[in-house]
Amino acid sequence: MFSMNHIKQFVENSLGRWRSQRSAHHLTFRHFEAVQSVIDIVAISPDDRAVIELCQLYSVDPSQAVMPFQMSWEGESDWDENSEVKGSCILVPIPDPNLPNRGKLLRDQGYAETIAAAGDYHITEDGTFVLLTTYEHAAAEEKIWFANPNLRFRVSLIKTSGGSGVVTASFSSEIRSMSGN
Amino acid sequence: MFSMNHIKQFVENSLGRWRSQRSAHHLTFRHFEAVQSVIDIVAISPDDRAVIELCQLYSVDPSQAVMPFQMSWEGESDWDENSEVKGSCILVPIPDPNLPNRGKLLRDQGYAETIAAAGDYHITEDGTFVLLTTYEHAAAEEKIWFANPNLRFRVSLIKTSGGSGVVTASFSSEIRSMSGN
Repeated sequence: MFSMNHIKQFVENSLGRWRSQRSAHHLTFRHFEAVQSVIDIVAISPDDRAVIELCQLYSVDPSQAVMPFQMSWEGESDWDENSEVKGSCILVPIPDPNLPNRGKLLRDQGYAETIAAAGDYHITEDGTFVLLTTYEHAAAEEKIWFANPNLRFRVSLIKTSGGSGVVTASFSSEIRSMSGN
Repeated sequence: MFSMNHIKQFVENSLGRWRSQRSAHHLTFRHFEAVQSVIDIVAISPDDRAVIELCQLYSVDPSQAVMPFQMSWEGESDWDENSEVKGSCILVPIPDPNLPNRGKLLRDQGYAETIAAAGDYHITEDGTFVLLTTYEHAAAEEKIWFANPNLRFRVSLIKTSGGSGVVTASFSSEIRSMSGN
């Protein structure tokens, strides 16, 4: 039995194929970037070797992992028509044993830098998933929430490592793909 | 003395001139629209005739109004290069006397339809201002929050009148204009 603000429920609601419209605001240059992509979110086994290795990298007991998943994306940006936006990462939630709406999210490849990262998440009273990740040269803040079961929104901020200056703010509208392709 | 989740504080933090980058996602057509604008938010007197008339329109005692303000915007959209995005409205917060973080927001011109509107606002624990407005043929949901005192974000959803379907989702990055022009 998990409440609405538990990570298990949030990941379950996120599984599937999503068609994403993403707008990035590069704040310094007042530039707009538009990205269209397809995102696949698939549950993976807690026994998966990649999950166990990621837990070991962060000295976490793999039995604490809840609902690990793989996220893959493939799309196109209008910033550079030749650059295909494509990637995949494995994410492993490690809920705080004492605070059901908080925990760590391990990933084998970060959003702002392509290295493994451990972020701190919490889920607010109104069901918004908030993830804060500190990298060596930047910090990232993501908010994800559902408007309805088939539509979710994501706001991502890339900040300077100090965390005060926001370099890029992006907004994604993600619509569940009903066709399965 | 007002807490962070009181509308007075939120409006005070919002006063000034903002340079806005807005991306609208027209979800049905997967269309991106980019709008650049300047937004001015100016406090107005609770004794202003427009404030009193708006309160009377909604049968509210004008003495309940807190921090009424005028918002003006002027900008350009890439949707139609000939259409200037320009407008102005007066907004009057009417806090709930019993719930300090909730209330009504009256405005003399709505966002989705150009008629007067009364929305219901609340301010979440993490300081996000949330406004729900129901019009005759549509509903609007706005979330506004500050990343720091000089940067705020706004997510606006235009929904069908039933409220389930989202027609347009837009995201604004609003940077305080330091130059004063």
